[in-house]
Amino acid sequence: MTDQNDTPPIGLWLIGARGAISTCVAYGLAGIRHGMLEPVGLTTAEPPLSELDLAPFESFVLGGHDVCARDVSRSAGELVKTGILQPDLVAATASEAATYEANLRPGPLDGPDVGLADLDPRSSELGALPPLQQVARMRADWDEFERANGLARTVIAYVASTEAGRDAQPEWDDLGELEASLERGIEQPASLLYAFAALGSGRPFVNFTPNLGASPKALHALAEREGVPHCGNDGKTGETLLKTVLAPMFRARALRVLSWQGYNMLGNRDGEVLRDAAHRQVKVQHKDDALRSILGNGRDLHTQVGIDYVPSLSDWKTAWDFVHFEGFLGARMSLQFTWAGSDSALAAPLILDLARLAEFAQRRGEGGLMAHTACFFKAPLAGGTHDFHRQYAALVEYATSRMARR
Amino acid sequence: MTDQNDTPPIGLWLIGARGAISTCVAYGLAGIRHGMLEPVGLTTAEPPLSELDLAPFESFVLGGHDVCARDVSRSAGELVKTGILQPDLVAATASEAATYEANLRPGPLDGPDVGLADLDPRSSELGALPPLQQVARMRADWDEFERANGLARTVIAYVASTEAGRDAQPEWDDLGELEASLERGIEQPASLLYAFAALGSGRPFVNFTPNLGASPKALHALAEREGVPHCGNDGKTGETLLKTVLAPMFRARALRVLSWQGYNMLGNRDGEVLRDAAHRQVKVQHKDDALRSILGNGRDLHTQVGIDYVPSLSDWKTAWDFVHFEGFLGARMSLQFTWAGSDSALAAPLILDLARLAEFAQRRGEGGLMAHTACFFKAPLAGGTHDFHRQYAALVEYATSRMARR
Amino acid sequence: MTDQNDTPPIGLWLIGARGAISTCVAYGLAGIRHGMLEPVGLTTAEPPLSELDLAPFESFVLGGHDVCARDVSRSAGELVKTGILQPDLVAATASEAATYEANLRPGPLDGPDVGLADLDPRSSELGALPPLQQVARMRADWDEFERANGLARTVIAYVASTEAGRDAQPEWDDLGELEASLERGIEQPASLLYAFAALGSGRPFVNFTPNLGASPKALHALAEREGVPHCGNDGKTGETLLKTVLAPMFRARALRVLSWQGYNMLGNRDGEVLRDAAHRQVKVQHKDDALRSILGNGRDLHTQVGIDYVPSLSDWKTAWDFVHFEGFLGARMSLQFTWAGSDSALAAPLILDLARLAEFAQRRGEGGLMAHTACFFKAPLAGGTHDFHRQYAALVEYATSRMARR
Amino acid sequence: MTDQNDTPPIGLWLIGARGAISTCVAYGLAGIRHGMLEPVGLTTAEPPLSELDLAPFESFVLGGHDVCARDVSRSAGELVKTGILQPDLVAATASEAATYEANLRPGPLDGPDVGLADLDPRSSELGALPPLQQVARMRADWDEFERANGLARTVIAYVASTEAGRDAQPEWDDLGELEASLERGIEQPASLLYAFAALGSGRPFVNFTPNLGASPKALHALAEREGVPHCGNDGKTGETLLKTVLAPMFRARALRVLSWQGYNMLGNRDGEVLRDAAHRQVKVQHKDDALRSILGNGRDLHTQVGIDYVPSLSDWKTAWDFVHFEGFLGARMSLQFTWAGSDSALAAPLILDLARLAEFAQRRGEGGLMAHTACFFKAPLAGGTHDFHRQYAALVEYATSRMARR
Repeated sequence: MTDQNDTPPIGLWLIGARGAISTCVAYGLAGIRHGMLEPVGLTTAEPPLSELDLAPFESFVLGGHDVCARDVSRSAGELVKTGILQPDLVAATASEAATYEANLRPGPLDGPDVGLADLDPRSSELGALPPLQQVARMRADWDEFERANGLARTVIAYVASTEAGRDAQPEWDDLGELEASLERGIEQPASLLYAFAALGSGRPFVNFTPNLGASPKALHALAEREGVPHCGNDGKTGETLLKTVLAPMFRARALRVLSWQGYNMLGNRDGEVLRDAAHRQVKVQHKDDALRSILGNGRDLHTQVGIDYVPSLSDWKTAWDFVHFEGFLGARMSLQFTWAGSDSALAAPLILDLARLAEFAQRRGEGGLMAHTACFFKAPLAGGTHDFHRQYAALVEYATSRMARR
Repeated sequence: MTDQNDTPPIGLWLIGARGAISTCVAYGLAGIRHGMLEPVGLTTAEPPLSELDLAPFESFVLGGHDVCARDVSRSAGELVKTGILQPDLVAATASEAATYEANLRPGPLDGPDVGLADLDPRSSELGALPPLQQVARMRADWDEFERANGLARTVIAYVASTEAGRDAQPEWDDLGELEASLERGIEQPASLLYAFAALGSGRPFVNFTPNLGASPKALHALAEREGVPHCGNDGKTGETLLKTVLAPMFRARALRVLSWQGYNMLGNRDGEVLRDAAHRQVKVQHKDDALRSILGNGRDLHTQVGIDYVPSLSDWKTAWDFVHFEGFLGARMSLQFTWAGSDSALAAPLILDLARLAEFAQRRGEGGLMAHTACFFKAPLAGGTHDFHRQYAALVEYATSRMARR
Repeated sequence: MTDQNDTPPIGLWLIGARGAISTCVAYGLAGIRHGMLEPVGLTTAEPPLSELDLAPFESFVLGGHDVCARDVSRSAGELVKTGILQPDLVAATASEAATYEANLRPGPLDGPDVGLADLDPRSSELGALPPLQQVARMRADWDEFERANGLARTVIAYVASTEAGRDAQPEWDDLGELEASLERGIEQPASLLYAFAALGSGRPFVNFTPNLGASPKALHALAEREGVPHCGNDGKTGETLLKTVLAPMFRARALRVLSWQGYNMLGNRDGEVLRDAAHRQVKVQHKDDALRSILGNGRDLHTQVGIDYVPSLSDWKTAWDFVHFEGFLGARMSLQFTWAGSDSALAAPLILDLARLAEFAQRRGEGGLMAHTACFFKAPLAGGTHDFHRQYAALVEYATSRMARR
Repeated sequence: MTDQNDTPPIGLWLIGARGAISTCVAYGLAGIRHGMLEPVGLTTAEPPLSELDLAPFESFVLGGHDVCARDVSRSAGELVKTGILQPDLVAATASEAATYEANLRPGPLDGPDVGLADLDPRSSELGALPPLQQVARMRADWDEFERANGLARTVIAYVASTEAGRDAQPEWDDLGELEASLERGIEQPASLLYAFAALGSGRPFVNFTPNLGASPKALHALAEREGVPHCGNDGKTGETLLKTVLAPMFRARALRVLSWQGYNMLGNRDGEVLRDAAHRQVKVQHKDDALRSILGNGRDLHTQVGIDYVPSLSDWKTAWDFVHFEGFLGARMSLQFTWAGSDSALAAPLILDLARLAEFAQRRGEGGLMAHTACFFKAPLAGGTHDFHRQYAALVEYATSRMARR
C-alpha cells in the first residue's frame, strides 16, 4: 500500500534503451499512468507482492543507453505493426515518448559487435575508450539524469542484445585484480563495465540478459562492499519458464524423462543477433542447465535446445517442445507444447517488477544478491533451485517477511 | 527404510479388479517383485517419500471385486496389444496373475448400470440385495481374504468405472441418518456402500474415481468415529495434472487467462462409459473446478472441458489444451499442449503409492482424511489448493514430519 | 488480361452485408483499388485464372442486405482491434466505406432468428411479409442499386450467419410446386427466398454458407430455366480445406485412417450463432461428409467434428485435428495439426473470386450449376469429389478451356 | 489381376539388408504370405494400381547385401520392442526369416564410413578392392541368388544408410568416362557402384536413399543403353510427403507462405548416421528443394529443415512443422503439424510397390527412367513437379494407360 503523493521520483535507466523490451517498458508505463492499461503481467501488482511498500509505477522516470541510433518512436511503429502495441496507446502517450527519447544517451559498443545496422557512431568511439573512461562516462550520464529529474535513486536495468561469449578471465574472480586490470586498460565486455559502473556508484543493477554483467565473483564482492542490491541473469519469460514449471511435475511423479527437445523461433533483433554461433552459445546453455538440474537424471537424459531466426515472426517468439518420457511398466508417453508469445511484452513487465524490488531492497538497506528474485531468471546469480514454483514461493516468503517487519 | 523380512503381508483390495488400472497394478507389482521393472512413476519410491517407513511393494497381496466376468489375463492381452504391457513381463508373471485371479470375487452392480457387456450375472443378483446385505457380503469377502493370506490389514482401493451421477440425498450429510436409511433398505450408489463397508470395518478406503465413495459428510464422520484413514476423489493423472501445474504459473506471473479449452480423447472402457451424458457430467466437473479455483478470475474466464470416446486410441489418452491469455500491453498470446499417455499406466502406480500411504497412516493411528494426499486427486476430499506444486510440497512436509517423529 | 477502361461497372450484392466477411470484402476491395493491398489470397489473381477475361476487381460496386443495424465502420473497428484490418487502410478508405454503407438495405429476418442483438426492426417487419412480397422487395432493392450505379449486371453473394436447420419440404423438389407454395404464402427460409429472388430475376447467386439457398432441386430447375449461373454451398476456408487436402494422401498411400477428430474454436458472431444446436447441426454435417467420401472406409472410420464458441478468439478461428492411422505391419501412427487463421480474411477473397467467376459465366451465357467452383465449397452443389487438388485441377481445366475458346 | 500359380519367382535384393526397412520388408512380406497382415500402406494393393498385371507379393524371394554383421532377427527384436513388429508375427514367420538370413551377403563398405559399430570385417575388405572387382563380386552374388532360387529376374533396391556427401566428379556426366575411370581404379561411392553393377547387368535399380546411386547422367545413359528401368532418389515417406501435399494448397489459394520451419527427430541408425554433418547435408537439401519448387516465391520465402538424433524415439520419427503465411488484407496466420510415424513401416511397403513397378516395367520392355514413380521420391530422377497429388495423378494415368494396352 503506497501513498503516491509523498513518493520521490525514482530513476529507471535501461541499457538497450531503443530495443523492443525498453520500448514496451516506456509505452507500458505511460499507458498505466494514463489509466489506459491494466497492470497485466506484473507480478508486483498482484497480492501478496502488491501489499509491499514498493514504489508506485507512476514514480519511475525513464532514461537509457543504447548503441544504435534508431528513434524510439520507430521501434514503437514496428511493435504496432506486429500487433503488440495498440495504435491508440502510442498516439496518447507521444509526449512521454518524447521525454524518454530526450533522456537517451549513446553507450559504448562491445568490442566484437562491429558491423551492426543502425549503429550510433558515438557508440563506436565510446567503446574504443579505456575501460575506466567508459565507466566514468556512464556515471556522468547517470549523475546528470538524476540531477535533472530530482531522482532519489536510479536502478540500472540491462536489456541489451546478447553479447559475444568470452572465455573466463582470472581477474573476474577477484575484485582487487579486476580493479587493477581496469586501471591497466584491459578490455572487458561492455555488460561487465555497466555492472561495475552501477554497483561501484551505489546503483542497483538488474541483468535481464545472458551477458556477463555482474555474474563474476569480483562484481559480487563489489556489490557486497558497497551494499548495493543486484540480480540476474537472463530473464525467464517463455520456453524456459515452462520447462521449469513442467519438469518438477515429472520429478514429483517419478516419471522418467528420456528426451526433451526444445525448438525456439523468433524474428526480432535478438533473434538476428543469435544467428551468430558465438552469441547463441551463451543463450542456449542457460536453457539447458535448468532442465538437467531439476530432473537430475544425468547421462540418461537427452536434451537439446535450438534458437532459429525466423524473420516473419518478428517479436512473436514461438517455441515447440517435445518431451518423451517413460512411466510405470516402461510405457512411453509424450507431452508437446507450442508457446506463442510476444517476447518483449513478456519481458517488459518483469523489468518493472525487478526495478521496484531493487529500489525497495536498496531503500531497506538490503545489499548484495537479491536471492528472492530467482523466479525471474534462467540463471539466478544466487543459485538455488530452478523449479519455478519453489522460486516463486521464496519470493512470496520474502514479501511476507518484509510485510511483517513493517 | 524398511526391513522386508519382518514386514507382515498387507492386503490391497481393488474394486474394479478386472479393469485396465487393476491389471496394471497386478502385473506391475509382480514385475517389481521379479526385478523386471524399475519403480518408475511411483512417487513413494523417490526421496523424500522413499525414506518413510512404508510397507515394501513386495509385502502387498492383491484381491478384488468386479462386476464383469472377463478374465484378468484377457485384460492383460489387450494391454500387450496396445503396447502398454510387455509380453515378456506377462509371460514371466503368469503364476502371480493366476493367484490374483483366484482372489477375485463378484461385486454388486450399481443400480443404473444395467446392460453392460461382460457382466457377471452374480453381480446383478448382489446389486439387487438390500444395501446392508451387500455391505455384509463385501466384509465377508475381505475377512476371508485376510484369513486366507494371513494379512495384517487391508486397504480398499476403488478404481471402478464412472457411476451415473445422483442428486444429493439428505441422509448423506449425517451418519445417523445414513445408517437409519440403510436399515430401512434405501438404495445407495455402490461406491458409497463400498466406502461404508470399508470404513465401518476399520479398513482404509482410497477412492481414485469421481464416484461418490466416501465424499459425503456421513462417511467422513464414520471414518472419524472409527479412526480409519481415507482419501479421494478422482485420480489426477493427465490433463488435469497439467492444468494444475500450469495454471499457477499464469497466476504467479499475473498473466490473464482468457480461455482454456481442453479436449480429451480416450478409447478404453472408461471412455465408453463416459459416452453417456449422466456418467460424463461427474467427470467433467472436477476437471473444470481446479482451473477456476487456481486462476480465480471468475466470470472473465472462459473454460470448457470435453471427453470424447475414440476407440482406436484404446488406453492411450490424448488431450489437447488451448490456453489463450493476455499479457502486458494487452498483447494476446497462447499456449497449447498435447498430452499422450497410457491412462492405466499413469494411474496404477498412484494406487500403489496411496495404498502404502494409507497403510502407513493406519499403522500410525492417523484416522480420518489424509489431507496430505491432495496432490493425487482432482477433487481432494480435504479441500485446499488445487495447485499441484503446493499440494506436493504438503506431501513432502508430511513425509518430513513423520521422519522426524521416528 | 483485361482492359480496365472499357469494363462496365458490375454489382456485387452481399447478403449479411454488415458482418465480418462483407466488411473484409469492402475494405479489401478498396485497398486493392488504392494500391495499398496486394491480391494475396485471391485465386483468380494468380495464373492460370488471372489469364481469363474476368472483370477487374476495380469494376465492382458493392451493396447489400443485412438484418442488423450495426454500422459497417463499427465492424471495421472490431477487425482493427483483432489485428485483421490495418488501421491505415481503414483510415485511407473511409469514403469507399461511406459509399458502401449508403448502399445497404434491411433484409428480411429468417423466421426462427428472433432475439438477435443489434436487430434492425425493419428486418423483423420484412420477415413477417408473405414470401412473394419479400422477394419483390429484394428485387426492387437490386433494381434500384443497378439503376443508381449504371451496373451491367449484379452478382448476389450470400454470406449471412447460419440459419436454423429445417426438415426437407416436398415443394423443394419441384419448381412448380415451390412457386405454387409461395403463391399460397407458405413460409420458407430467408436464404431460399434470396436464391429464388436472384435466380428468378436473372442474377447469379453464390451461397457461401451452409444455409439452404439454391440447394433444393426446385432452385436448380429455376437456374436452368432462366439460364443463370449459381454455385454453393458453404465456403471451404479452413479445417475442411485441410481435411480435403490431407485425406487424399492417406488414400493414395493406402494408409488406413482409424479416427479423425476435429475441434474448431471461434469467437465471432458466426461462432455465437453456432452455440445453438439447431444452427450447429447444419454446419457440422458438411465438415464430416467430405472426409467419409474421400477415405471411403465406411464403418471402420471414426470421425467427429466439433465447433465451440470461444469469445476471446474473436475472428481468429483455431482448429486442432487429430488423425490416428494404421500403416504397414499394423503400426499405429498419428498426424495432428493446429490451424489458426482469420475466418473472415480467409473467406473474403473467395467471395471476390466467385463473383468474378459468376459474372464471367453469365457474360458467356453459361447458366446453371458452376461445377468448376467445387474447390471453393464444403458441399459443392454439383457434387463430385471432395479432394481439393482434383477440384482445383477441374477449375484450372475450366480456365484453360475458356482461354482456348477466346 | 494376376494368376499366382503360373507366376515365376522374382528376386528382390536389398542393399542395407540388415537395417530396419529391410527387416520390415522381410517380415511384412512373410506376414502377407501367411495371411496375418492386410496390405495396408501398399499403393499397388489399391485400385487402380491393383488392377495392373503386377507380380503378386507372394512371388518375391528376398536376399541382400549389408556392411554390418547384426543378425536380422536381432533387428526384428528391436522393432518388436518399439512396438512396430508384432511378436506373434515374428514368431510365426521364423522360418522365412531364416531363409532371408541365409540369402544375405557382405557388401563393400563405402570409403568414408569407417568406424561403424557392428561392422562385418569382410565389408571393409570388399570396400578396399578396385571398383570393378567390387562390381564383379556384386554381380556374382546376384547370379548365384538367381540360380539357387530359379528367379526370372531380380530388382535391386538400395535402402542403406546415408553416405557421406561428395563433390561432383567430371566422369559422372559421361558413361564412357565413367567406365574408363573405373578401369583405372578410381574410387567411387558404393551406391554408384551398386547402380553400375545392377544396370550394367540388366537388373532394375531402385534408390530409396539420398545417396548418389544412379543419379549421375552416366548412369542414366547406362540404363538407356541396356534398356533397364530405374528410379530414385530418396523415399518420400513423412514430413516431405506432407510438405508436398500441403504446399500446393497454399499456392492454389494464393496464400503467401512467409516461413516454413521443419524440425525432424528420429532415433534409429539412420538418425545416428545423420548426426554427422557430411551425411546430413545430402538429406536436408532434398527436403528443402521440394518446397521452394512448389511455392515458387523465391527470396521472400524463409525455409529451414533440421534433423536431430533423439535416441529414445528409436524408429518413431517425429516431425514438427510450422508454416507462417499471409492472407488477404495482410492478415498473418499459421499452420503447424506434428507427424509421428514409424520410419521403417512407412518406407517398407513403398519398396514392395517399387519392386513390383520395376519388375512390371522390365517385363514390358520399358527401360530408362520410371518417371511415373515420382510420387515415391523426394528428388525424382526424372524431375517434374514435387506436388504429390499431381505426381500421384501421373502414376494413376500410367496405370490406366497400361491397362488399356493389355
